[in-house]
Amino acid sequence: MKITVDIPDWLEKYINPDRTLSSDEEKMLLAIEIAGKSIENGGGPFGAVITNRKTGELLSCGANLVVKNNLSILHAEIVAIMIAQKLLGSYSLARAGEFELFSSSEPCAMCLGAILWSGIKRVVWGAPSEVARNIGFDEGPVYEQSWSYLKSKGIEIVSGIKQKEAEENLYLYKQRNGAIYNP
Amino acid sequence: MKITVDIPDWLEKYINPDRTLSSDEEKMLLAIEIAGKSIENGGGPFGAVITNRKTGELLSCGANLVVKNNLSILHAEIVAIMIAQKLLGSYSLARAGEFELFSSSEPCAMCLGAILWSGIKRVVWGAPSEVARNIGFDEGPVYEQSWSYLKSKGIEIVSGIKQKEAEENLYLYKQRNGAIYNP
Repeated sequence: MKITVDIPDWLEKYINPDRTLSSDEEKMLLAIEIAGKSIENGGGPFGAVITNRKTGELLSCGANLVVKNNLSILHAEIVAIMIAQKLLGSYSLARAGEFELFSSSEPCAMCLGAILWSGIKRVVWGAPSEVARNIGFDEGPVYEQSWSYLKSKGIEIVSGIKQKEAEENLYLYKQRNGAIYNP
Repeated sequence: MKITVDIPDWLEKYINPDRTLSSDEEKMLLAIEIAGKSIENGGGPFGAVITNRKTGELLSCGANLVVKNNLSILHAEIVAIMIAQKLLGSYSLARAGEFELFSSSEPCAMCLGAILWSGIKRVVWGAPSEVARNIGFDEGPVYEQSWSYLKSKGIEIVSGIKQKEAEENLYLYKQRNGAIYNP
């Protein structure tokens, strides 16, 4: 028996190992661009990017594919982590180098936990979770001490990069009455 | 592009829609049996079962497949949720009925968040997370208020069913020097 996750062509086209991104802003703008494309393609308003922390090389991209695949776990961060681990052939990105995750929105409770297991060394987000909560998504129990726990494990946490641009997608999604895929 | 999760035959054989389980103890013993089989088959020492809360019918089973599939998200609970959602064709189990998750160990931070999104209405575990932490697994930031959050969303939480039997698998795994798949 196999469970198959379909990665749409539009998302796959973003995964280009020859592409190098330099600044936090540039990496975040790519995650936000993917979030926008996801809305256009009927998906959730979230995008994520994984890059090599030292070289800036693009490893993986993710978008919210919950509705498309009928799997509640397929948040943008989880999709990016799954693709990255399959490409590297390892359940721990930490064993393959130092990688950083850029997410258009603050990771939810599930994704926060998933980041810890994934071996990602640095997490950067744009919009705070309050905005996702305000448009209707139940982001779950995330507390200041939850992020402190990750920091205590050596993971760097950065928030608010290109926040305004990141929030715009969330408001656009609400305007268009996008699916709120709470249970 | 597709990401494929292989469900091993030994696990698939447990997924029997004609099987009905009656008590919490019986359901938990099945989750614990799966955890034991997982150890025998070189997987992580965790098992999970999803049943219909009203009828006791078995919907789905999961085991820890992190190492086998090289995907850090594949905890037993996540595997059981993915199989259940694929079988029902819905990203929300709540839209298909009332379902309960039995996990041999207390869910980690990631799985706690995943339960909230999945539409599961009742969670029961055997061993407390302290035991998994003691044998080396980093279960992440889970606080009393994290479970209270789920309760406030209408999810029933029950702990310590067949705890001794559940813990035995974890100690057996440590004795056998099973892989500790932290990043």
